[in-house]
Amino acid sequence: MSAPTNVTAAILVIGDEILSGRTKDKNIGYIAEYLGKIGIDLREARVVPDVEDEIVAALNALRARYDYVVTTGGIGPTHDDITADAVARAFGVGIGEDPRAIAIMLERYAPGDLTAARRRMARMPEGSELIDNPISRAPGFRIGNVFVLAGVPSVMQAMLDSAVKEMRTGAIMLVETVEAGFVPEGRYGDALGRIAEANAAVSIGSYPSFKDGRFNNQIVVRGKEAQAVAAAKAAVEAMLETIRGDGKPL
Amino acid sequence: MSAPTNVTAAILVIGDEILSGRTKDKNIGYIAEYLGKIGIDLREARVVPDVEDEIVAALNALRARYDYVVTTGGIGPTHDDITADAVARAFGVGIGEDPRAIAIMLERYAPGDLTAARRRMARMPEGSELIDNPISRAPGFRIGNVFVLAGVPSVMQAMLDSAVKEMRTGAIMLVETVEAGFVPEGRYGDALGRIAEANAAVSIGSYPSFKDGRFNNQIVVRGKEAQAVAAAKAAVEAMLETIRGDGKPL
Repeated sequence: MSAPTNVTAAILVIGDEILSGRTKDKNIGYIAEYLGKIGIDLREARVVPDVEDEIVAALNALRARYDYVVTTGGIGPTHDDITADAVARAFGVGIGEDPRAIAIMLERYAPGDLTAARRRMARMPEGSELIDNPISRAPGFRIGNVFVLAGVPSVMQAMLDSAVKEMRTGAIMLVETVEAGFVPEGRYGDALGRIAEANAAVSIGSYPSFKDGRFNNQIVVRGKEAQAVAAAKAAVEAMLETIRGDGKPL
Repeated sequence: MSAPTNVTAAILVIGDEILSGRTKDKNIGYIAEYLGKIGIDLREARVVPDVEDEIVAALNALRARYDYVVTTGGIGPTHDDITADAVARAFGVGIGEDPRAIAIMLERYAPGDLTAARRRMARMPEGSELIDNPISRAPGFRIGNVFVLAGVPSVMQAMLDSAVKEMRTGAIMLVETVEAGFVPEGRYGDALGRIAEANAAVSIGSYPSFKDGRFNNQIVVRGKEAQAVAAAKAAVEAMLETIRGDGKPL
């Protein structure tokens, strides 16, 4: 049996508005879940400001390390939209107005309404392929292993639907969740550690949430081999049964 | 007049559950807003998995570069909670059970209930100071310029209240928001770029949201000098008035 294939990705969120707290990022969680479901493992995310040097450095670090990088933000028509320039610099290529992008934008705007600001959205690094934007037309782009998407969540999501068609996918991560409920982590932590050690083909996480003054816990088993996931899940369930039945107060 | 002081920070979110999309991060936005209000500028955020090498590398990159680093996640009682070990390694110091932390935990747990798993939460890198956890007692810790907090939002938030008492603060970022509403970015982008250029003491961002099939825009002026922020805001408002009154369709 061959080992499951891993395809990896990182997200680079670009925007002062996320770092100031003005806008609460919703893209990392959405992209993480979306990629996971199709067999691409998100391994890292970064948020950087609208500063070209920062974008270039982060992008070059991430694109060298992961199969794909998805960026969000900074491709609109205003002066603070500098992602395309930063990406061109990161790749060491020129940037210019892309006639394909202009043609697409002319489907939405009359020629007289194509202001200099709007034309900025047609500037693409040399060698880019366009990414369709069914919401507001101005396209995203792909260059190498980097996919450059909008920051507005609904626009980003529509672009992502197009972008993933160009990505290889690997084995899908199988996920099983076991409700530990009010059994405290401190009661099952030792036993869970032993289960994790004995089931090295999966990763096991314990996730508390806190509500009405008490923790409510979930144990999550993740892996790419169905049998290994099922075996680990069964071990976790048996362990919790033992604790629930041991007569000690929770 | 002396230049406004800048105190900078980064956030390191630690946890497979964020990168898998299972848990949607709420801590970056909360910490960003909180620090901003007291005069600490968040400059970068990263999300890394529960992998010691990744935590160490990210933490060492961030703590060298910013005045403070706040980490969230990975300090609970289960095997996947490896933040304290990773922080100790990043600082090149030992790690051991901290008697102060044990004493605090004994306020909550009877001695017989202090399982090996729970004792894990008392392991602190050498030289750490404890950070109070009024919610569930097991403390966070500070070492050097790094503040290590829980991942569960309500616990993290309570720890942050304690942590910030140990941080220097700088000049507070002043923020003015101008509603551009349905005036399209493409109509004001050129003029806004000229205003941004003429008002170098502030940063100006344009932020669209998308609802019911159209963009609704806000222009945000940020800076640390009140007069400069007021002047730029006035210029933005005047510019929007001109566009609204120019008789062309929006």
